[in-house]
Amino acid sequence: MRKLNTTPKHDGFYMPAEFEEHDGTYMIWPERTDNWRYGAKYAQHVFVQIAAVIGKYENTTMLVNSSQYKNARAVLPEYVRVLEMSNNDAWARDTGATFVKNNAGELRGIDWEFNAWGGLQNGLYFPWDKDSQIAQKMCELEYADVYHVDNFVLEGGAIHVDGNGSVMATEACLLDEGRNPHLDKETVEQILQKYLNVEKVIWLKHGIHLDETNEHIDNICCFVKPGVVTLAWTDDTNDPQYQFSKDCYDILSSITDSKGRKLNIHKIHIPSPVIISKEESCGVDSVSGTKPRAAGDRLAASYINYYVCNGAVIVPAFNDPMDGQAKETLKDLYPDRDIIQIYSREILLGGGNIHCITQQVPKREIT
Amino acid sequence: MRKLNTTPKHDGFYMPAEFEEHDGTYMIWPERTDNWRYGAKYAQHVFVQIAAVIGKYENTTMLVNSSQYKNARAVLPEYVRVLEMSNNDAWARDTGATFVKNNAGELRGIDWEFNAWGGLQNGLYFPWDKDSQIAQKMCELEYADVYHVDNFVLEGGAIHVDGNGSVMATEACLLDEGRNPHLDKETVEQILQKYLNVEKVIWLKHGIHLDETNEHIDNICCFVKPGVVTLAWTDDTNDPQYQFSKDCYDILSSITDSKGRKLNIHKIHIPSPVIISKEESCGVDSVSGTKPRAAGDRLAASYINYYVCNGAVIVPAFNDPMDGQAKETLKDLYPDRDIIQIYSREILLGGGNIHCITQQVPKREIT
Repeated sequence: MRKLNTTPKHDGFYMPAEFEEHDGTYMIWPERTDNWRYGAKYAQHVFVQIAAVIGKYENTTMLVNSSQYKNARAVLPEYVRVLEMSNNDAWARDTGATFVKNNAGELRGIDWEFNAWGGLQNGLYFPWDKDSQIAQKMCELEYADVYHVDNFVLEGGAIHVDGNGSVMATEACLLDEGRNPHLDKETVEQILQKYLNVEKVIWLKHGIHLDETNEHIDNICCFVKPGVVTLAWTDDTNDPQYQFSKDCYDILSSITDSKGRKLNIHKIHIPSPVIISKEESCGVDSVSGTKPRAAGDRLAASYINYYVCNGAVIVPAFNDPMDGQAKETLKDLYPDRDIIQIYSREILLGGGNIHCITQQVPKREIT
Repeated sequence: MRKLNTTPKHDGFYMPAEFEEHDGTYMIWPERTDNWRYGAKYAQHVFVQIAAVIGKYENTTMLVNSSQYKNARAVLPEYVRVLEMSNNDAWARDTGATFVKNNAGELRGIDWEFNAWGGLQNGLYFPWDKDSQIAQKMCELEYADVYHVDNFVLEGGAIHVDGNGSVMATEACLLDEGRNPHLDKETVEQILQKYLNVEKVIWLKHGIHLDETNEHIDNICCFVKPGVVTLAWTDDTNDPQYQFSKDCYDILSSITDSKGRKLNIHKIHIPSPVIISKEESCGVDSVSGTKPRAAGDRLAASYINYYVCNGAVIVPAFNDPMDGQAKETLKDLYPDRDIIQIYSREILLGGGNIHCITQQVPKREIT
């Protein structure tokens, strides 16, 4: 694994869209008891469910701390690969490598700086030393050379590309003071352009209300294909989410993508507010320095945090009347894929959802 | 990774010889301070040297405990892959998978039971829980299904195959009371035949004098190709090794291999006795339950513990007058490979040599 000092754009590499073909998926096993209730056992069951489903569509690898190796290996199906990799938490989207490839089908990885969504300023736990090594280690597993991006903090969930010259991101996240306070918007844009090899950065202002990632794009808006997006929505004008989503809609309606296309926007209604129960809160260790999970807190529930793998879309369910509508909309938008909905409240309780815990490896060409 | 309940022989898989083409090599990073002197730093330097050389000939992966990941990654060359894998010590030959393949070029692994060369009876350290998981984990890395061999203890260094129907082993090791006291010689032979898919087991009585593995075959005798072997030798009739080597020679001269061939035997003289110095002994932590490294103890030095990779043979050197002769003999026997000698006293101080710390992955066919 070589460490590269150039940029993907310079070398003719770009980030393929998630909906393009994959070689496989990485996930990371949840374990920390100050984030996942009751020893992470409930969350682990849901991670098993999700890995078991994705593993039927493509190679799926679960990365796990050595302390949990035997348990993870025992409870995951044989067809899910289980490998040791030290980690602080289970967010493969955010700590994993962002993979890029070139037209010859070669694979490389980007290792952004990771600071637990805000570092000492407003990060969610401390330390994050193991998480910050995951992207590089993932590249080694894949025999992929790696671009280290020094002095630029970014998580995979903070960007969505269409594989065709455009990336989406939120200002709330990328310009937050916990990430890159030394950089202005223009510089951030240039870095994204050079590393993702895109021409256009589509800036939304906000993501999902109370999203602890500082409103990652991957919870609010997603490219279905170039020129087509899904957007988290609510008609309830009293919900703070209304203004957030409305702003997004207005921006998305008014701009064009890198190829000059107007965007086709599909609204997907969020579920009714999802609130942490007392029983749920009680199962989480209280550790100073880690974001508490307090009873009564609203969670950033959104169907947009779905994962697109080969042949399927894996979609959160909340046991909410909106579940079915989300599924129907996605069925229409992804007609060639199975739409599989998984009740994922346990992941939401930990601060994310299905997209946040998955990371795709784009399909290589075999030479 | 499926766990298979059949045997390689049943499924048409066999163990290729080490001299056949490889996909790559695994090694494990030395760390335990009760075996490797002065915090294992000297040994680590030699492991770096060896990995750096092998890595020039084929894909080389260093497996490392998370505690040493950063150091190993920093001191190994970029072209050596470094992956986390929990381990108790650094003997990839003995704890790694024994890989088998079929005529279609598919790869599978054998996971023998491992008990630290003798278990609670006469093993070399306790516990060995992490080591006993390495073979399976190596198979997962390789996407290889795995044969678990229950109730049969064996290490990779205890066998040498010619890839053509024959395996060699020593009675001193395979019939030692610390391995499989419940099995007689005939049953052991049947197990080897079923798992390695060989017809003939060539039994030598002894290996190298004082070899703490109970005299592994891979320190005394090696197949150069079918019908041709190298044998550790001494002309000093006062050295206890003389009778050991003489017995091997007599057996090897009198038998035929699985294909009815007489064996062509090439003697390689051992170096003068290699003795642990006081300074060396002083650098090793004293831990009850781990074999001590006492000043004055003789080590099981032999050139036969060489490793054959694609295009090269990596051979121990001892700064002994015999070094050159060993190299010349191997040059004649492996005319198409580079013969690279590495001063490996540090590995010997830990109880093995270059062959003991390497494990090949046979070449797959790409389908």
